[in-house]
Amino acid sequence: MDVQLVNPFIDATVHVLASLAFTEAHVGKPYLKKDPVAQGDVSGVVGLSGETKGTISVTFTRKCILTIVSKMFGEELTEINDEVKDAVGEILNIVSGSGRQRLQAMGKTMTGAIPTVITGKNHVISHVTTHPIIAVPFHTENGDFTFEVCFE
Amino acid sequence: MDVQLVNPFIDATVHVLASLAFTEAHVGKPYLKKDPVAQGDVSGVVGLSGETKGTISVTFTRKCILTIVSKMFGEELTEINDEVKDAVGEILNIVSGSGRQRLQAMGKTMTGAIPTVITGKNHVISHVTTHPIIAVPFHTENGDFTFEVCFE
Repeated sequence: MDVQLVNPFIDATVHVLASLAFTEAHVGKPYLKKDPVAQGDVSGVVGLSGETKGTISVTFTRKCILTIVSKMFGEELTEINDEVKDAVGEILNIVSGSGRQRLQAMGKTMTGAIPTVITGKNHVISHVTTHPIIAVPFHTENGDFTFEVCFE
Repeated sequence: MDVQLVNPFIDATVHVLASLAFTEAHVGKPYLKKDPVAQGDVSGVVGLSGETKGTISVTFTRKCILTIVSKMFGEELTEINDEVKDAVGEILNIVSGSGRQRLQAMGKTMTGAIPTVITGKNHVISHVTTHPIIAVPFHTENGDFTFEVCFE
């Protein structure tokens, strides 16, 4: 897997959270994921296809996503409701769109599918591929989240 | 949404489970999904894009998928392990591939992304789109599962 394919999505995630949710997301060291590590309470997944096929996902703890969406909307949210799910889908759409735009500038054209949001305490996300999966840990002052990218 | 886009995936699901897992899956009445209804213990999601974008997902209860995968492998599985997750990804890949092939014969070309499998007791799947989502309930003698399709 070409790591150049990952950076546009990392940059997009940092930028989206800063501009939409006034949240500073610190990027940890990306690593090759062998076992499923993204475990959390709310995840968003979006498939990509075109010149190559892939999938990106982001998995938040409950506290982390509630704080992010509360900041986005300027009101305190205390439950994982439809507003929160829609916001996760929206964040993922923007990250996917912005990331793909940067990839296109590098000569790789891909389109995104309809995003899916998963809720449920401590669920685990696994991408079914024999190709490498890169996990990127992010840290915010209200909890951590994991971003994952895989391409074939 | 064109319901003609849904039938190829329903046919593919019935065929795949019959041929790979010797499981007779009875198709219930498809319905338009307003609220998230697919709640279960193991889900597979795969994004589609091309002439239109979409996503398909399937959500199983624990008992239902353990029975299906046990029949696929000819050995009794009692835990949701990597074998089960890979099998869900494989089932979804075949359903996606076979369904897309039938769509192509109808003049619609789409490609599939990398499938994602979600595990976690009673998680809920929501597709983030303003377009209709069609849910198809399936019944097997060892429990039910829900197949969902959405296209823009």
